[in-house]
Amino acid sequence: MTRSRTVELEGHIIDSGTMQRCFGAVMDLGGSFDVEQFDVGKHETEESYCRLTVSADDAETLRAILHELHQNGAVLEDPSAVDLVAAPADKVVPPDFYSTTNHPTEVLYDGEWIDVERIEMDCALVVDPDGSEDGSARAYTKTLNAVEEGDLVATDESGIRVNPPERPRSGGGAFGFMQGGVSAERPSESTIREVAAELRAVKEDGGNVMVVAGPAVIHSGAGDALADLVAAGYVDALSAGNGFATHDLERSIYGTSLGMNVETLEHPRKGHKHHIWTISEIIRAGGIEAAVEDGIVSEGVMYECVRNDVDTVLAGSIRDDGPLPDTITDAVEAQDAIRGQAHEADLVIMLATLLHSVAVGNCLPSTTKTVCVDINPATVTQLLDRGSAQAIGMVTDIGTFVPTLAEFVLEGDE
Amino acid sequence: MTRSRTVELEGHIIDSGTMQRCFGAVMDLGGSFDVEQFDVGKHETEESYCRLTVSADDAETLRAILHELHQNGAVLEDPSAVDLVAAPADKVVPPDFYSTTNHPTEVLYDGEWIDVERIEMDCALVVDPDGSEDGSARAYTKTLNAVEEGDLVATDESGIRVNPPERPRSGGGAFGFMQGGVSAERPSESTIREVAAELRAVKEDGGNVMVVAGPAVIHSGAGDALADLVAAGYVDALSAGNGFATHDLERSIYGTSLGMNVETLEHPRKGHKHHIWTISEIIRAGGIEAAVEDGIVSEGVMYECVRNDVDTVLAGSIRDDGPLPDTITDAVEAQDAIRGQAHEADLVIMLATLLHSVAVGNCLPSTTKTVCVDINPATVTQLLDRGSAQAIGMVTDIGTFVPTLAEFVLEGDE
Amino acid sequence: MTRSRTVELEGHIIDSGTMQRCFGAVMDLGGSFDVEQFDVGKHETEESYCRLTVSADDAETLRAILHELHQNGAVLEDPSAVDLVAAPADKVVPPDFYSTTNHPTEVLYDGEWIDVERIEMDCALVVDPDGSEDGSARAYTKTLNAVEEGDLVATDESGIRVNPPERPRSGGGAFGFMQGGVSAERPSESTIREVAAELRAVKEDGGNVMVVAGPAVIHSGAGDALADLVAAGYVDALSAGNGFATHDLERSIYGTSLGMNVETLEHPRKGHKHHIWTISEIIRAGGIEAAVEDGIVSEGVMYECVRNDVDTVLAGSIRDDGPLPDTITDAVEAQDAIRGQAHEADLVIMLATLLHSVAVGNCLPSTTKTVCVDINPATVTQLLDRGSAQAIGMVTDIGTFVPTLAEFVLEGDE
Amino acid sequence: MTRSRTVELEGHIIDSGTMQRCFGAVMDLGGSFDVEQFDVGKHETEESYCRLTVSADDAETLRAILHELHQNGAVLEDPSAVDLVAAPADKVVPPDFYSTTNHPTEVLYDGEWIDVERIEMDCALVVDPDGSEDGSARAYTKTLNAVEEGDLVATDESGIRVNPPERPRSGGGAFGFMQGGVSAERPSESTIREVAAELRAVKEDGGNVMVVAGPAVIHSGAGDALADLVAAGYVDALSAGNGFATHDLERSIYGTSLGMNVETLEHPRKGHKHHIWTISEIIRAGGIEAAVEDGIVSEGVMYECVRNDVDTVLAGSIRDDGPLPDTITDAVEAQDAIRGQAHEADLVIMLATLLHSVAVGNCLPSTTKTVCVDINPATVTQLLDRGSAQAIGMVTDIGTFVPTLAEFVLEGDE
Repeated sequence: MTRSRTVELEGHIIDSGTMQRCFGAVMDLGGSFDVEQFDVGKHETEESYCRLTVSADDAETLRAILHELHQNGAVLEDPSAVDLVAAPADKVVPPDFYSTTNHPTEVLYDGEWIDVERIEMDCALVVDPDGSEDGSARAYTKTLNAVEEGDLVATDESGIRVNPPERPRSGGGAFGFMQGGVSAERPSESTIREVAAELRAVKEDGGNVMVVAGPAVIHSGAGDALADLVAAGYVDALSAGNGFATHDLERSIYGTSLGMNVETLEHPRKGHKHHIWTISEIIRAGGIEAAVEDGIVSEGVMYECVRNDVDTVLAGSIRDDGPLPDTITDAVEAQDAIRGQAHEADLVIMLATLLHSVAVGNCLPSTTKTVCVDINPATVTQLLDRGSAQAIGMVTDIGTFVPTLAEFVLEGDE
Repeated sequence: MTRSRTVELEGHIIDSGTMQRCFGAVMDLGGSFDVEQFDVGKHETEESYCRLTVSADDAETLRAILHELHQNGAVLEDPSAVDLVAAPADKVVPPDFYSTTNHPTEVLYDGEWIDVERIEMDCALVVDPDGSEDGSARAYTKTLNAVEEGDLVATDESGIRVNPPERPRSGGGAFGFMQGGVSAERPSESTIREVAAELRAVKEDGGNVMVVAGPAVIHSGAGDALADLVAAGYVDALSAGNGFATHDLERSIYGTSLGMNVETLEHPRKGHKHHIWTISEIIRAGGIEAAVEDGIVSEGVMYECVRNDVDTVLAGSIRDDGPLPDTITDAVEAQDAIRGQAHEADLVIMLATLLHSVAVGNCLPSTTKTVCVDINPATVTQLLDRGSAQAIGMVTDIGTFVPTLAEFVLEGDE
Repeated sequence: MTRSRTVELEGHIIDSGTMQRCFGAVMDLGGSFDVEQFDVGKHETEESYCRLTVSADDAETLRAILHELHQNGAVLEDPSAVDLVAAPADKVVPPDFYSTTNHPTEVLYDGEWIDVERIEMDCALVVDPDGSEDGSARAYTKTLNAVEEGDLVATDESGIRVNPPERPRSGGGAFGFMQGGVSAERPSESTIREVAAELRAVKEDGGNVMVVAGPAVIHSGAGDALADLVAAGYVDALSAGNGFATHDLERSIYGTSLGMNVETLEHPRKGHKHHIWTISEIIRAGGIEAAVEDGIVSEGVMYECVRNDVDTVLAGSIRDDGPLPDTITDAVEAQDAIRGQAHEADLVIMLATLLHSVAVGNCLPSTTKTVCVDINPATVTQLLDRGSAQAIGMVTDIGTFVPTLAEFVLEGDE
Repeated sequence: MTRSRTVELEGHIIDSGTMQRCFGAVMDLGGSFDVEQFDVGKHETEESYCRLTVSADDAETLRAILHELHQNGAVLEDPSAVDLVAAPADKVVPPDFYSTTNHPTEVLYDGEWIDVERIEMDCALVVDPDGSEDGSARAYTKTLNAVEEGDLVATDESGIRVNPPERPRSGGGAFGFMQGGVSAERPSESTIREVAAELRAVKEDGGNVMVVAGPAVIHSGAGDALADLVAAGYVDALSAGNGFATHDLERSIYGTSLGMNVETLEHPRKGHKHHIWTISEIIRAGGIEAAVEDGIVSEGVMYECVRNDVDTVLAGSIRDDGPLPDTITDAVEAQDAIRGQAHEADLVIMLATLLHSVAVGNCLPSTTKTVCVDINPATVTQLLDRGSAQAIGMVTDIGTFVPTLAEFVLEGDE
């Protein structure tokens, strides 16, 4: 038996690709559509409106199609209120609970569309009926882990409106709108210059800049340049791992005295005992901050982070040596710390680390500007595919990217 | 002074992404638009129509915008005839000559839209006023090299209509519609099964299958499987290089007698004198066909190609050893031979060769189905980006892909 | 002032590359050598002996050279006993503590060379003077984390003898001896056949087979084949992450009922809510084993692991969704569990996961046979570089590798 | 029946790895050895000498073993003269002809060891009995193509001595000795500094610098920096393709006037009609030199090459558009031109092109210093594997490498 539902879409739905994706989803999934009304914006600043009825041969197919349309911003013509079910136990969500996207979202509760706070994908959506200071309702995301017995959790998709990012009306500069491709052939220097301009602009507007960094930043000799950016106040949060911190500290403790590591070209492995010794020295001192205070560590990225009160999270992993006492070894606890950083960030710069970049990316709303730099195109592609609407991917050597970025950012300071 | 022109688009212009690209181009290039009419197809089978006026602050910007719209299928509201200028000398085209896309194209000549033959990108478009058998006009592409003095060459974009491929109304199966992405995570076996089904279907319809193959096909032990496909009649044309042929012939001449190369795991380099000796033996015999007739070569891909009259082109390159006497060493001559193969093909399977695949891809219309397989994602991405509308990209090991494909194709024969 | 020391090396030190590395280290680091005696083994089965005096202009250089020679198996001509210092506090090692290699190692204690147990690189080396059942001394490695106040920790390199693996006298088959290179051009099927033979041989000898697996094993459709290997008893330990387990469980819970995921070609992201729902279902059931018992999970790798009592470790990471209740979220605790698996393994097969493979590789002695398979050559190279002496690296598609391996292993069972 | 032969090796055969490879080859191929004499050099400056008898169960195995030993520099204890056979026809070599390595080689002719000229791998070795000016014999390589009827071609391996490069006695700096690995983690800036120093040193010694460049040099915005190096006289030869030259010329002709290509970030494809138009303009002018003279081209790499009389070879390929009139379209003719450049070069810098780099690498003796830079590790590995003894591989972005190199090279000029 043919089933049908009518949905509405509005906004810059043609040039943002929304209609293409919606029509495509209907056809891909074997349904059909009937456009009931389509008012096309006459100019680039005018929004469009579309009302269409979608049909399918069975309820299952229709549900799958409506799910896709929902993800692209469609709402039922006559939306009912959000469907809330109390969580039966801690960490247990009701069947058919609503799993969030990373796009701005609203819920229809008590006759009003209210904004969902702490946007993040793959979470539960919880409504607190009187959670606001004025006693009105609030809605926010919660990870599965954080769900508590009795939380009112949204189920299915009724009463929920997703607002995927729209194509900016102006060009958008380097930060392309949902461009899938990543090219190693784009003129590097001019792209770096645009990132530098954005970084300066965000800081001038009082924004928050988060850097996610892997050990290759240090290996490739780019540590000094990153430390310079931190010292000059361009970094508000650093999200990294035990390996990054240890390599940076090792350079401070052993790099100069032995005078060999970065100047000569010896294989990293050969000096690996310094890596372990560094961890041992930091454990002995009682942590990184103590080691800075004791003068054991006197330069580098971690040193500048301590000195400049940068919000630093070192997340542990199973491949760590040590780890350093500052490393958060529990993955859930570390995620929560990263989540706190990510929700504050206005610009995120990911430098040569897949693991930490994915962890941060998982917590970001689709509206946060993101720059991802790695020498491996697959890493860049994987990160951009996770769905930031305004992202730059660069396939380049981190060892030349960071110094060039620092030069462009800092030269304006002189 | 603001300049404006009015253009029209029709077809499945929303779900094929045409309108998104057109509106995007106007905004990216700094123009503005005014939608004068937009009739949206009510159902998935109904075409849409759009008439819009595009404006820009100067003629140069307007020209750039109209170029982008033209490439996406827009035509001026009141198109004038194609603008033809005689080529001033052999290989020399008029200034501002029209450079073709790889999409189906028509020219407005003598009051009629006539189809352009031999669709291929980056060519000149030549009109022969009485080139048909019935004395009417013909239009076709010519590479710069082939242009002759006096050829009537189309200039600028007036009177030319491009028809970019539209999204197929049905799902399209494995052959996705202009999907940029290439994933190594897609279920491999089921994709290979779809390629096998397509290969069988094309042959059942009397279609032409072209295989483009690199030396890795032989190195990875997949030569026997490819030879089986050739022997069973599933390959109409083979486009490869001197390296591919030599490796295949080497296996036939030395592989079995020494009994080591493919069974053991020795490094290819170690047996490299066999590579040179193979070339020398084929030169001595007078070519591959002679070597097959003399019984020097008695198995393998080249053997089966000779036996089954497969249209084989071996194109030379500067990295070749030898080369074999069958190799076309002149790049222009080789391109023409490849062009002949490509224009005949209904399905092209590209196996682990960037150079030859790009050469073939350059000659293909955007409507030809294409499968591209390589273990390097960058190669697959680069090939799919060249613009086939119906393409499959697979990042996988050729040494297991070809045997699996052959098994799926041939098992249906039993 | 020139400083000198005399060291001795013995064994198959020419054909294992030991002498090349030792002479090279002396020259690279700016020292000089004087060969006092060199008895070259006359035949391939005869060992060689070398005594050489090494000189350098200063003590620091000499120390660096001796460190390199030590790592390659050299011992001082007249070795003194191991130098033990008590750990001053928990997790704190003495300055200049000895950081272990992953090669078999002995310490000279109380006049006797005793074997170091639990060989693993980058650990402290602890001697327990009366740790054996018979009251004699024992020596073993301890990670920095595990060091307790009062542990007698070896410092500098005196009294410690490292035994790097030697080239096997016979060819060694697919398991090459410390070959750096990884080739995508090696004949894949015959290599897989050798791995299958080794897997069967290890199990026939009562050995322990450990599989390290990433989510791509499931994404690529290879889950069934791995489940078959587990069901047939060829896998003793599974080391994976939350992502691998969730994907596998999702296939069992949602894969079949919806009938789409693996058969059709839809993008993994589209079905991502199933991923979250799967975790929620397993949390509701109380864990994987409970879900198997309740019949919620009735096929797949995790199902077979539960049914066949496979030693399974799921290590958490900061990119995890959920996580599943079975996931060990603390990195140090997870490492210890992995360490337990790694020390038992006779053959380790690493499938498409960099993070877990590195974690396992960090715990392996250099004598454990290792197979590493990934479609990204950089991953394979990185893993083999960590120093297994008998390793196979394969750059290939996991989606075809595992089914082919299973076929070769299991066909012998029929 | 056991067969044996006695061979001799001398030189720095332990620390260059020669003995390891020779002993390994005997064992790998199933033979056995008997060391009759082994005089080990006492110091790093003293050479070693080894005489060993190799045995195998059959003549075929012994021959394979002796071939490996020969390639590593072993000579029969009592060598006979080189075995010469006249070529039976043009391009046809005698059966069992000797295929050259890329190492320095001598032949024993008329009782004297004479050096082979024009060292290049995979060639025939021809002796001209009275080819010298003084009427004495000469020996040189000839590609199969160049062999003429009657040429005296060496067969099997008797009377031929190969001298593989030995480990330099001093460290060698950045130019490592036959190191297989390529690391993206090495400190980039210091490596570039070493390349710059070597480039300056070669030019100061009156040496010849050859640059091999791909189109990505221009795409990535590094064209100006390369042009600067050419203008300053640091480049003696440029080996590239039609694509590189066209991109460079396009920047000169269209880049500035339209002011968009490199400053903005538009996709390369969008401006592709400029590519074709550029070729057309150069054809119209009659070639690059004519276009420079006419003022059509007034900056860029090709412009500076014309102005500075750089030996430029543009080799054609089947993926070329056009091509430009300056492009050598015949692969054999182009190879010969490249060969001429390669044999003159003292330092070769390969920039982001696999095809042209392999073509050049094929013609280089193993003693030529080589730098290979590409963002794809597989490209770098493949090139270094071809056997230069003194090579640097860098996995980095060409768009930052070339400007940084130019800065380091040119800053010394001020």
